[in-house]
Amino acid sequence: MTRERVYLFDTTLRDGAQTTGVDFSLEDKRAVASLLDRIGVDYVEGGYPGANPLDTTFFSEKRTKNAKFTAFGMTKRPGRSVSNDPGVASLLEAQADAICFVTKSWDYHVHVALETTLEENLAGIRDSVSAAREKGREVIVDCEHFFDGYKANPTYALACAKTAYESGARWVVLCDTNGGTLPHEISAIVREVVKVVPGGNLGIHAHDDCGCAVANSLAAVEAGARHIQGTLNGLGERCGNANLVTLIGALKLKDGYASRFDLGVSDESLGQLTHLSRQVDEILNRQPNRHAPFVGASAFATKAGIHASAVLKDPHTYEHVEPESVGNVRKVLVSDQGGQSNILAELKRLGFTFEKGDKRVSRILDEVKRKEAEGFAFEGADASFYVLVKRMLGEVPAFFQVERFSVNVERRFNALGEMVTASEAIVKVRVGEDVLISAAEGNGPVNALDVALRKDLGKYQDLIQDLELIDYKVRIYQGGSDAVTRVLIEFSDASGDSWTTIGVSANIIDASFQALTDSMVYKLLKSGAGL
Amino acid sequence: MTRERVYLFDTTLRDGAQTTGVDFSLEDKRAVASLLDRIGVDYVEGGYPGANPLDTTFFSEKRTKNAKFTAFGMTKRPGRSVSNDPGVASLLEAQADAICFVTKSWDYHVHVALETTLEENLAGIRDSVSAAREKGREVIVDCEHFFDGYKANPTYALACAKTAYESGARWVVLCDTNGGTLPHEISAIVREVVKVVPGGNLGIHAHDDCGCAVANSLAAVEAGARHIQGTLNGLGERCGNANLVTLIGALKLKDGYASRFDLGVSDESLGQLTHLSRQVDEILNRQPNRHAPFVGASAFATKAGIHASAVLKDPHTYEHVEPESVGNVRKVLVSDQGGQSNILAELKRLGFTFEKGDKRVSRILDEVKRKEAEGFAFEGADASFYVLVKRMLGEVPAFFQVERFSVNVERRFNALGEMVTASEAIVKVRVGEDVLISAAEGNGPVNALDVALRKDLGKYQDLIQDLELIDYKVRIYQGGSDAVTRVLIEFSDASGDSWTTIGVSANIIDASFQALTDSMVYKLLKSGAGL
Repeated sequence: MTRERVYLFDTTLRDGAQTTGVDFSLEDKRAVASLLDRIGVDYVEGGYPGANPLDTTFFSEKRTKNAKFTAFGMTKRPGRSVSNDPGVASLLEAQADAICFVTKSWDYHVHVALETTLEENLAGIRDSVSAAREKGREVIVDCEHFFDGYKANPTYALACAKTAYESGARWVVLCDTNGGTLPHEISAIVREVVKVVPGGNLGIHAHDDCGCAVANSLAAVEAGARHIQGTLNGLGERCGNANLVTLIGALKLKDGYASRFDLGVSDESLGQLTHLSRQVDEILNRQPNRHAPFVGASAFATKAGIHASAVLKDPHTYEHVEPESVGNVRKVLVSDQGGQSNILAELKRLGFTFEKGDKRVSRILDEVKRKEAEGFAFEGADASFYVLVKRMLGEVPAFFQVERFSVNVERRFNALGEMVTASEAIVKVRVGEDVLISAAEGNGPVNALDVALRKDLGKYQDLIQDLELIDYKVRIYQGGSDAVTRVLIEFSDASGDSWTTIGVSANIIDASFQALTDSMVYKLLKSGAGL
Repeated sequence: MTRERVYLFDTTLRDGAQTTGVDFSLEDKRAVASLLDRIGVDYVEGGYPGANPLDTTFFSEKRTKNAKFTAFGMTKRPGRSVSNDPGVASLLEAQADAICFVTKSWDYHVHVALETTLEENLAGIRDSVSAAREKGREVIVDCEHFFDGYKANPTYALACAKTAYESGARWVVLCDTNGGTLPHEISAIVREVVKVVPGGNLGIHAHDDCGCAVANSLAAVEAGARHIQGTLNGLGERCGNANLVTLIGALKLKDGYASRFDLGVSDESLGQLTHLSRQVDEILNRQPNRHAPFVGASAFATKAGIHASAVLKDPHTYEHVEPESVGNVRKVLVSDQGGQSNILAELKRLGFTFEKGDKRVSRILDEVKRKEAEGFAFEGADASFYVLVKRMLGEVPAFFQVERFSVNVERRFNALGEMVTASEAIVKVRVGEDVLISAAEGNGPVNALDVALRKDLGKYQDLIQDLELIDYKVRIYQGGSDAVTRVLIEFSDASGDSWTTIGVSANIIDASFQALTDSMVYKLLKSGAGL
């Protein structure tokens, strides 16, 4: 059976830029465009040239190698010719393979927002599309609020779509701009539209205001559309756009789709999906959604003792797809709800081998539960879990003992009358027979403490020289009656390895201290020191 | 047209307990059960009595007033009679109105996981349901992995469903246990099942592993089912269960459903939906999902300058439902992408009136952009934005000036040879003519600084006496090349008001200092001090 091609249009850099708390720098846009090229999407909508200086600069050159680099803007404004419209001019000047025009398709908007006639709006579509075609650009037309427009005045909405198609648009995209259309409505309406615009030229742009963006996109494809617009990780204003990461996973891996449709995303790229999804969050300093379909840290994680045994016996019984196919991993969570099978699987993953029934496993499990009651969470802090296990096995040599530290932050007027803040730390460490005192300054108390701790570790100093603190996360956690601070620190070393440790205390410096020293011990163990 | 009743079954306290990082205490379960009663769901599945001590205790009494309090467990194990099955015994002992039995309906599981025959499994369903009916319990049967089971062996899956129904189950629930079924498959399969089990006795239990849990639930209802199982805020293992909050919003407010279906959720309760959703996150110390449909902080937030003017002119043009109907608010975000209309709307919301074109508005906008470039984000930090505006208007008296502070954290051996950590702060403040020095201890450096700052503010001390720090959030934000720390602090006072301030610095103590002093200034302004 021949598979039909479905095209993916990514608008992370345009619609996704509307996400609360997200601001793309030029460098961010470059990095994301390059990442999108690696995934294999067909179109990368880079932004809105003319609307702001950054986007105009972004379109001073083509930013993708494989995907069609696409510029977004509005159809010509009423009452002026297309050659006198600065918005269209910016689009035509942009170094882009394709232009995506957004146009009104709801009569109400034409009258109230544009303050013009229905016929003038259609002329605007016609003229804009033609102007872009004349310049050799591929044209996409986004019909804004299409589904509400169709419900209000189906004749007009269809006329907009048809006009766009007949003027030469490669794609006419039906946009559920306010995200309020339901899947059964999408199905019914798209089935009507394919009577005037062929499915092979029809696209869908869904939003998640009813939690149905992915389903709406799939419903449109079922009804004949062959182009899906969305964003990475479901970025976008309000509740976000359709999540292209989820859609790629579903279209590539689910029987109901993989046999019928073909994407520009290769199997190799699919295997990088988890990594690429996390990179986007890193670029934007966003907390990854651990519950995201396919790529979330918890997407293949199981907590319940009963499930865990079955999952490990035969994953097929419980997993809908293989985690490795999207570059994700199966996780059996270390948690106080988990039983022996959970802990054994986690221990195995970290390189420890125990026989079933080994009493030490129960003791480790008890210690985990005890620490979790204090506020520790070892999911995502593998290195601390590793060190805990090694300690319980008595396999951690007495590398060093911090006998004292003092951290000070002082804010005062300097000699020039300026308010300045200084952070200092003093650390007193015993290493074997020696007692070493180090002092350091930092840009903050934790930085000062980190530098002081790793300034002079005596005979072990060489081994920790290449440590680099690459991430620092703080979370206030409500345990029992008091709040405690949970600090997660990620380190890397010259080998390229990276690992995360955790510290918990009511005192953020104390919590940081635990995570810092755990990391140092982990590195020393890793280096085979003291053996 | 008569509306048909759709029943909502909440499993937040059972399936939702499997969420990564979630652990319900007994008090948590009581609080959530009471909250669910207020929302108006029909069933509250409280947990799994017999599986762990907490759940067994939870079922020692009925915990809901209106909703049917439901106990979860497995059908009887093969090879024993129902009266000799401890699992079933726990269920029958539980103080519950209803029992929800989970049973296998995929032949593969019956053979491999249960290691028994297809017939024995059916007998297990029959006997368990009958035993519960004899004890006067309403019975729900969850057919595990139903859709995979149907695809593998439709005859057997249907036999399980039919057996449950004929044995007296009020509801037969088709579970997409691994979340891998797609909406068009749900539709097709449910349409087959209603030929053997009436739609009025059929339910759906969906998971979000393909991002389609809500859509799958709606598809099942479209196909005839009248019972939906889900969790608040989409809690649940892996990618979560179907989000009941989203489903309540959709079923109550969307034309396509509100005219056809009736829920146990009243319009009053609907108006509390946002508040109740946030309360659940608070109880569980979870970061609320600001992008959640209907109730998310950003669900009705618009950033773009163009949209903002239109939204404020006529919200109906851009919003799919009214935010107030679910207890949410429209937001026009203060952001560097926003134009004048955005800022004016925010200023109006905080009680400032400016004429359009007032030059001070541009200056305020410029200052906001400047601070945002440093890492500030005023969304969610209203009090800091308020103080910023007041300062720019020259309306903040010189209340106090902190001339110096020093914060120290020291960890060392005490006289008993124990490792202890002590945190101290000294603050030197000028209030009018007086210079006041205060010292304080705390459980951490920020706590010590907070106590010292508010210990002696001279003539203003009375006005800040009732301040209480109720929440403290830290986020490391990657601005330009360096990471900065963003601190958000929430205070309340005796009147019950609460507000949030923000501080940004590479130094966490400095950032906390900014947020703390902003809050003190806000409180003094609010009290009318210095006028």
